Amino acid sequence: MNSHGDSSKGELELIRRLSRELAATTAEGRSSSARERAAVPFGDDMAALQPGDPSLLWTTDMLMDGVDFDSARHRWYDIGRKAMAANLSDCAAMAAVPVAALCAVALGNSLSMDDALDLLRGARDCGMRFGCPLVGGDTNSWDRPTVISIVVAARTEAGRRPVRRCGARPDDRIFVSGPVGGSILGRHLSFEPRIETALAINRQLDPHAMIDISDGLAIDLWRVLEASGCGAVLEAASLEAAVHPDAVRLAAQDGTTPREHALHDGEDFELIVFLPPEVPTDACRRLGLLPLGHATRDRRFLLRERDGRRVEVEQRGWEHFR
Amino acid sequence: MNSHGDSSKGELELIRRLSRELAATTAEGRSSSARERAAVPFGDDMAALQPGDPSLLWTTDMLMDGVDFDSARHRWYDIGRKAMAANLSDCAAMAAVPVAALCAVALGNSLSMDDALDLLRGARDCGMRFGCPLVGGDTNSWDRPTVISIVVAARTEAGRRPVRRCGARPDDRIFVSGPVGGSILGRHLSFEPRIETALAINRQLDPHAMIDISDGLAIDLWRVLEASGCGAVLEAASLEAAVHPDAVRLAAQDGTTPREHALHDGEDFELIVFLPPEVPTDACRRLGLLPLGHATRDRRFLLRERDGRRVEVEQRGWEHFR
Repeated sequence: MNSHGDSSKGELELIRRLSRELAATTAEGRSSSARERAAVPFGDDMAALQPGDPSLLWTTDMLMDGVDFDSARHRWYDIGRKAMAANLSDCAAMAAVPVAALCAVALGNSLSMDDALDLLRGARDCGMRFGCPLVGGDTNSWDRPTVISIVVAARTEAGRRPVRRCGARPDDRIFVSGPVGGSILGRHLSFEPRIETALAINRQLDPHAMIDISDGLAIDLWRVLEASGCGAVLEAASLEAAVHPDAVRLAAQDGTTPREHALHDGEDFELIVFLPPEVPTDACRRLGLLPLGHATRDRRFLLRERDGRRVEVEQRGWEHFR
Repeated sequence: MNSHGDSSKGELELIRRLSRELAATTAEGRSSSARERAAVPFGDDMAALQPGDPSLLWTTDMLMDGVDFDSARHRWYDIGRKAMAANLSDCAAMAAVPVAALCAVALGNSLSMDDALDLLRGARDCGMRFGCPLVGGDTNSWDRPTVISIVVAARTEAGRRPVRRCGARPDDRIFVSGPVGGSILGRHLSFEPRIETALAINRQLDPHAMIDISDGLAIDLWRVLEASGCGAVLEAASLEAAVHPDAVRLAAQDGTTPREHALHDGEDFELIVFLPPEVPTDACRRLGLLPLGHATRDRRFLLRERDGRRVEVEQRGWEHFR
């Protein structure tokens, strides 16, 4: 992840540079207090739609043929489903209830009308299961691979705040909402956005920070640490208990370790959750949360092996624009 | 425009088929009254973001390199500006005040960091001029031409409804907010979204229907007629007075007529406005509105030549996915 260092390119660096500029102009353009501006800034899983109202959020995700899906292998219906589900996963990350969606597409000219309808039906049906109707969009075509961009608006529940990625504190306990790694074997298309889990966590457990795993457990967890200004120690034994069987299968094929896949594979779309140290273990277990470790004042991101040795976790994962 | 007839492909046919399906599922998914559902349906310039609240609207527009812009000739800043302005033009079409925007991009790998920043700065700066900050987005890259998709949320002014495209009535007078045709000579990049004009029209003139010209005067005007269940007669003399000098220049180059360009060129981003028959001429003139003709009960779309002869207007224009 040289973009964390001195790289002049990379999605993170682009977002970082743009965020700096936008922070200034957003403050100018909106007559909001510093506190309101800070409510949900550029760079979280969702953004506040209106100044001074962190209860209405929105997010957008763009998927491209050959990058996020492969139309030669995947069904258009499943591709549309994934495009919607990726946005709904962002809603989960903020503990927000989806309200409605828009969909813009650049359809490859080779698609039939039925392909195009299947793509949109997949998105629509997935949205509907979460109370999030597709209410409009923009339909385009071109002689290139298909691009689909969905935007979802969501509301926080009454009396609840959105859970941001910058609220983690030293000694927080770190959990993941399900086993991770090896999503490329199929779950990257068929995953379930963890909205119900996220809402339950927000109602019951006073979470300090959450994020969904889109680019990888290590890099997305690191994003929370960076935004919150702390570090973390993951326990190797806990991590190994959170490895998905797909990661084991994949490791057997490619000669790496299941743990590598669990740490660095993208598109698990499980939640990483930071909870106060005193959180009741029972409640976490009931919600299916798997412990990973804890946050630290020390800003390093470490893995504690079973023998007590601590090794640095690489902040490696999928990053666009490198 | 065979998609109006029996074509099995074409953006309009796709939207038509999807709208039929979505109308049913949206009704299921939202516990809203029939009247609320009808407030702003799929297929207008913007959609209602929340059921039962037509005051908060949103829209999305996707632009693709080689289709909506040409990165070999256009500056990235201007391309970003256009992407934002196209969305703001949709706000104008509904007489809505922009609130905030999100931006998703698939950046071609050949772009430098500065190119990418310029693209986003162009979008941001254009939004800021209309009080519409860019508050978030999704940054991706690939080995293909750049795609930029912006979504804008907007509010109606207090006590005002959004102006829809389905409200035109027989005998309405039809206007355009400025001269049209030949936008390809430059205005397709540099156009001004007609938000101020639209808000003034909505405050002062009780408009029955509006739309912005994205695909062409004839086809976009026809969309209002189709949505409203009426026809129209345009006056040739009026149309000729609404021809942009660029249309004249272009006609001199390509051997067609300025009128053809005025009727069928896309991306003028002027407003087509349907006003009650009794609207005061002075008020229209003050707002820069140019008369074109009137709506009719007869569903045909006709042009009355100076000699009184009536000819059918072709509903031809830019249509994606054909």
